[in-house]
Amino acid sequence: MALIFNLNFDYRDIMEHILSYNSKYVENPLREFDARSRYLKEHGKEIIKLSIGDPAIYFPTADYIIKAYSAALKERKTYYSRSEGVKELINAIIKRYKHYYSIGLHEEDVIVTSGVSEALLFINSGLINKGDSALFFKPYYSQFIPNALMFGAVPIYGEYDEKNNWGIDTDRLEILLKKLPLQRRKKLKYMMLANPSNPTGTVLKEGTLRKLVDIANEYGMLLISDEIYDEIVYNGAKFTSMSKIAKGIPHIVLSGLSKNFSATGLRIGFMIMPEQDPVSEQVKKKMRDYAYLRLSINTPAQYAAAEAIGNQKEHDRFIKDYVSKIESRVNSAYKLLSQSKYLQVVKPNGAFYIFPKYDANKLNFKNDAELAHQLLETQGVQITRGSGFGKQNHFRIVCLAPESVLEKAITKIDILLDRYKKKTDNKD
Amino acid sequence: MALIFNLNFDYRDIMEHILSYNSKYVENPLREFDARSRYLKEHGKEIIKLSIGDPAIYFPTADYIIKAYSAALKERKTYYSRSEGVKELINAIIKRYKHYYSIGLHEEDVIVTSGVSEALLFINSGLINKGDSALFFKPYYSQFIPNALMFGAVPIYGEYDEKNNWGIDTDRLEILLKKLPLQRRKKLKYMMLANPSNPTGTVLKEGTLRKLVDIANEYGMLLISDEIYDEIVYNGAKFTSMSKIAKGIPHIVLSGLSKNFSATGLRIGFMIMPEQDPVSEQVKKKMRDYAYLRLSINTPAQYAAAEAIGNQKEHDRFIKDYVSKIESRVNSAYKLLSQSKYLQVVKPNGAFYIFPKYDANKLNFKNDAELAHQLLETQGVQITRGSGFGKQNHFRIVCLAPESVLEKAITKIDILLDRYKKKTDNKD
Repeated sequence: MALIFNLNFDYRDIMEHILSYNSKYVENPLREFDARSRYLKEHGKEIIKLSIGDPAIYFPTADYIIKAYSAALKERKTYYSRSEGVKELINAIIKRYKHYYSIGLHEEDVIVTSGVSEALLFINSGLINKGDSALFFKPYYSQFIPNALMFGAVPIYGEYDEKNNWGIDTDRLEILLKKLPLQRRKKLKYMMLANPSNPTGTVLKEGTLRKLVDIANEYGMLLISDEIYDEIVYNGAKFTSMSKIAKGIPHIVLSGLSKNFSATGLRIGFMIMPEQDPVSEQVKKKMRDYAYLRLSINTPAQYAAAEAIGNQKEHDRFIKDYVSKIESRVNSAYKLLSQSKYLQVVKPNGAFYIFPKYDANKLNFKNDAELAHQLLETQGVQITRGSGFGKQNHFRIVCLAPESVLEKAITKIDILLDRYKKKTDNKD
Repeated sequence: MALIFNLNFDYRDIMEHILSYNSKYVENPLREFDARSRYLKEHGKEIIKLSIGDPAIYFPTADYIIKAYSAALKERKTYYSRSEGVKELINAIIKRYKHYYSIGLHEEDVIVTSGVSEALLFINSGLINKGDSALFFKPYYSQFIPNALMFGAVPIYGEYDEKNNWGIDTDRLEILLKKLPLQRRKKLKYMMLANPSNPTGTVLKEGTLRKLVDIANEYGMLLISDEIYDEIVYNGAKFTSMSKIAKGIPHIVLSGLSKNFSATGLRIGFMIMPEQDPVSEQVKKKMRDYAYLRLSINTPAQYAAAEAIGNQKEHDRFIKDYVSKIESRVNSAYKLLSQSKYLQVVKPNGAFYIFPKYDANKLNFKNDAELAHQLLETQGVQITRGSGFGKQNHFRIVCLAPESVLEKAITKIDILLDRYKKKTDNKD
């Protein structure tokens, strides 16, 4: 049945413009091929999916967490929880930051969220007025940008420097910021970091972090550090939490169960705000209001999370083997990828991603979207295009599958790249 | 440690205005006394909490749901799910709407959300530009308004008519809408209904709904019907789903597990969009993008929900006794409240709330916030002030506790009202 409007005036016009302007920014490149890849799989094609950073597929969530989860269910903890998170979980999080980073947190400094995703929503809605700015670093974690644009933000982009192992050149950042018109500088609300970084797998050096803290302080930006991979650090790297070095500076650290505990599907994230200055107090209070508004997140999963984080002994047992397996998977994928004459690859030392650059001069791809598309269609390998993270001519592969699967996928990548090599390249 | 800004210009100013303008609307009156009530309880005061509509405290989630949930955990379904919801749950939802309302849904018409709360976020972010309007009815469910204001909406308010059993006077609504300036009318994006209604417990009549559908159609508003209590209908009332009568008109129905299945803490909501017209297709696609952006909601809870909804036999067994108990609790509370000379009470026939009006001429409360405050402090009874739902001189009580508890609470309400009666009232 068609729409029949009683047209006193053209209401049809309203309906045609039913969506908000900002909603056009809401998209997720991590998910863009999911429907197609599912379709291909259902039609008999073998698909190697290296597009989602989901460890729980390859590393089952530890028994002791499942046990605590089931116990909460058996006790019928299926009512709404406190909006800010159940006390047991908040206490476990406080203990965690004491244990790992010697940070003293109060109950009021912690808010439990439905993954870091929800924390990003709270933060952007809570801080961003239309036209405000936030500082991101390219390549960024793809969720950061739509969450800010949704509220009318004007992003400012710094860079992870590929030539410098994806580190951040803070001198260049300062030049960039100084060049901004005064009015724009005054609208900078926050600086967003991901450390270890997704998609590059970089662990930022303490010296870099200290400079970033100074810059945030100088420009009056709230510091936000997404540290969801803080225990997945290897190849000799040393991780420093923002909470350890931003003492006295308003900041928020984001983390959760998804990656460190291989429990993505529980959707347990949290934000900690260790400072007590007037700015931090305002932000904490408002973040709590956002939590109140949506009443509660999944309750039994919070009790599972309290045990996951609180039972340090069991977690220690899990994490060692887990990170060492990730390390060898990442390193073996790195080794294979870096043998390609079309690829330039930086060796990661955190998280579980590799973000190679392909040589656009030697290859016939229109852009990295075409590479991703062709790789799925012709080779059955699903990866994510670099432009989804703000970097053309790159792609991200997730190195969680066993070595044999990664090897097979990389062979298929090699086949595709070879097919797309430019004729001129043949003459070499 | 104090903030030390390197003051090239006054960055302190930025930090003082760190929060966004719209964030000031983010608050939840349902939660406003929670911290205080917890404090009082921890200090030995007996508290009767009638402020949160959480059936799972009094009616444990059914065994068969818990069993399915535990099974999903045992099978380690703790990875990210499909963003739009696991297939099993989507299929169960499709079956539900076929069974109850003879509605044929396609897979693409359903999106699973973290409670209706998350659906409200998707909808408001997806539809509202700053300055757009949406139509609500007072008293409204308290979450509706902050979720719209957060995106810069200008709410337009119709009324549930207390004198007419909290029905909606559609003639008055038409007069209201016709009086709106043309520019405002053109900015009306959606009409939001809660049926059965929270906080009034009203089930809207089919005739009223048909008129509302016509009005939404005439004014080019997307119809949104929050039907989370659609199985909690009693006292002889008949519920009609919007999906049954809005055929051919773009609309969204919101529902979930929280109330009908007494499983609030699972945070399983969903939205269905049964229409296939170009407007509905746009909206569906965009709502899916929002789901993609946050990756997934809790995965094992979705498998529990698939069983909860899909196992009609077990659910039928649960719901009969559940609704009949709610009916008698609501009715006994209604009977007691309506004996008060200070209160005017409409008998509910859906959900589990009563929303009495107190006679402000006879009582010395500055406003309903004072009543709610004094009731908690002096009597240990936590209710929600009517102004939290847009209606002064009212309060909402949740009628889920056993009769004896409700009776005790209402006795305490009587004591408070008596203490606050005006001197002039004594002379009668």
